[in-house]
Amino acid sequence: MISVEEARARILSGLRPTPAEIVALANAWGRVTAGAVRARLTQPPADVSAMDGYALRAADGGLGARLRLIGTAPAGHPFAGALGPGEAVRIFTGSIVPAGADGILLQEDATRDGELVTVNEAVVAGRHIRRAGQDFSAGDEVLPAGRRLTARDIGMAAAANHPWLGVHRRPRVAILATGDEIAMPGEPIPPGGIVSSNSHALAALVRAAGGEPIVLPVVQDDREAIAAVADAVAGMDMLVTTGGASVGEHDLVVAGLAQRGLEVDFWKIAMRPGKPVMFGGLGGVPVLGLPGNPVSALVCSILFLMPALGKLSGGAGDPPPTIPATLGGPVAANDQRADHLRATMTLDETGSAVVTPFGAQDSSMLRRFALADALVLRAPHAPALPAGAPVRAIRLDAIGV
Amino acid sequence: MISVEEARARILSGLRPTPAEIVALANAWGRVTAGAVRARLTQPPADVSAMDGYALRAADGGLGARLRLIGTAPAGHPFAGALGPGEAVRIFTGSIVPAGADGILLQEDATRDGELVTVNEAVVAGRHIRRAGQDFSAGDEVLPAGRRLTARDIGMAAAANHPWLGVHRRPRVAILATGDEIAMPGEPIPPGGIVSSNSHALAALVRAAGGEPIVLPVVQDDREAIAAVADAVAGMDMLVTTGGASVGEHDLVVAGLAQRGLEVDFWKIAMRPGKPVMFGGLGGVPVLGLPGNPVSALVCSILFLMPALGKLSGGAGDPPPTIPATLGGPVAANDQRADHLRATMTLDETGSAVVTPFGAQDSSMLRRFALADALVLRAPHAPALPAGAPVRAIRLDAIGV
Repeated sequence: MISVEEARARILSGLRPTPAEIVALANAWGRVTAGAVRARLTQPPADVSAMDGYALRAADGGLGARLRLIGTAPAGHPFAGALGPGEAVRIFTGSIVPAGADGILLQEDATRDGELVTVNEAVVAGRHIRRAGQDFSAGDEVLPAGRRLTARDIGMAAAANHPWLGVHRRPRVAILATGDEIAMPGEPIPPGGIVSSNSHALAALVRAAGGEPIVLPVVQDDREAIAAVADAVAGMDMLVTTGGASVGEHDLVVAGLAQRGLEVDFWKIAMRPGKPVMFGGLGGVPVLGLPGNPVSALVCSILFLMPALGKLSGGAGDPPPTIPATLGGPVAANDQRADHLRATMTLDETGSAVVTPFGAQDSSMLRRFALADALVLRAPHAPALPAGAPVRAIRLDAIGV
Repeated sequence: MISVEEARARILSGLRPTPAEIVALANAWGRVTAGAVRARLTQPPADVSAMDGYALRAADGGLGARLRLIGTAPAGHPFAGALGPGEAVRIFTGSIVPAGADGILLQEDATRDGELVTVNEAVVAGRHIRRAGQDFSAGDEVLPAGRRLTARDIGMAAAANHPWLGVHRRPRVAILATGDEIAMPGEPIPPGGIVSSNSHALAALVRAAGGEPIVLPVVQDDREAIAAVADAVAGMDMLVTTGGASVGEHDLVVAGLAQRGLEVDFWKIAMRPGKPVMFGGLGGVPVLGLPGNPVSALVCSILFLMPALGKLSGGAGDPPPTIPATLGGPVAANDQRADHLRATMTLDETGSAVVTPFGAQDSSMLRRFALADALVLRAPHAPALPAGAPVRAIRLDAIGV
């Protein structure tokens, strides 16, 4: 058996980021930058006022001084001339400071009477002025490569004057469910059959991780039909298979795709829930074979497929994020397999997470998994722990799973 | 001044969930259920084997017993007949247990010789059998109303045989930026002007919260032009405005829309960054007026717009999720305004979050905000805290902002 970490490293080592494409800024949220984004302008473009008030020479702004108002400069309408001794220009937040001015008299510190402005609070040179380039200057790197774009980043790219952004193409992941017993929701169910849930859950997980799922038609337990899938996956960035439970986990899938050149590794991973995972390559397309059991398939996807999508998308392929939590009940000592206990999560009075594993951890129970909030991580050979002990957990809603 | 909590409660009190629409299961990830989802079938549909092996009468399964193999039942191909004394049927994980059988002899506990199967480990009645309905039964509520659908939920709905789901329509949020100084990225920039970043950042935030943004054309600082916006927002679930900084925060927007019947509340909210927020209604459309400053606009959106979208989407309108963290550096005592310190976040050796606020918290600096990982929450009048003190923080990447 190999560890979860070794399996993940071996999967990631064979993956390369997708090439770049150009998308409109408005469609770039959640995408991953294919290169650094550099500012195309300087912000602020010139010295601007940070407040509403009057621009003047600070030397003229002593307490009680009176100045002559010579103009107004709303944002977007800079004062065209230069300001001389004893003169003031009405300005607003974001207005360019007129030539000759080096101080701002705040609106609330001034009394205006027609064209006369009286200083009620001495002006300090440079105060309330944002310097040109204080936020960023043309040429500055404002976003790094490999960053999944947040709402702030979209604002940043806009402010840096980018209507388009180069991002990694969404990884295309083909999803194959096999089995004579499988029907799509709403379609006739064969005798003793079940409705396919893995394809749709995995497609949603691929979306959650920023990929583009392609759900292939269900293939019957037939070697030739499975072999034909090889034609459908040309141009995909990954093929994920599940099931084939009727005749042993991956036998028919492997046998069928082997006719088309599948190079395959089988691993027994020291984890639970989960069975052997198959990883290989089919004409340059990485192939990940997951268990047919829905809970096992999703847990394996969280541990292996989501990091794979991260790497294919141009990121690092980090393992799923975990949070610190305390146990809401005791757990038994673990055996040699890393366990992922389905658990509910509450917050204690300090706002810290408390995770309580379900008593029954039957991996066939999809409904119970749907009701879980978190997976509690249990390392191989971890000792029994009492309620209140610290553990780490994966919050399922936080990753969209 | 009113508190952040009171402002949020007042905004939410006026909002109602959008009506339902039907979407294909494949498009339902991230949507919010408009009603409870009930199972349309029972899972497992009958008693099924949990393992590969042989079905038999447990009474026949004593150690050393020999049974006659009378058939094979792969999943999806149930055994048609009934099993009698001394008989066994080959079955697989998920296969329906044949009539007459009440025990499973595991494959690894059996020796097969042609049609003869020898028991190497005594069989226990009922063991390794999943009972009909063990996961769920027809009619069971498998997903509640008001739930944002995860990948697991999609799998659950599929297993319960739902090809379509009723979900709340995505809230349509019109976004209006005003100002003579504003240009769209890539378009000509007026003298002293800046590129609009708020519209795009807010549109991305609306997407992150499950809404549908409609970015309206930039409107100049002209009362009539602003009034005309009233026609554009019919049928929207909310209008969000930003800026108008050239002539005071909301003056022209309010004056313009008031001609068309805007009913308005101005609030001074005890928070930072942020200025007065405007909330009101325009012909039945809720209107949220945000500051023009990009950092203030986004922080106010996290605190008010995202919960509003949650409620419009059919959820509870919860405030943004926070995590417990410790301070990486000291913070000064707070004044009467709730503060939201932009901070970097690292994990300590125990995996707990350490948040370190930037020294400068200038709300005009979008780039610094883009580099932040978290907002550290500081309640009004919170005392000075040393490094290592516990605080709560909003993880920005976790909410897509």
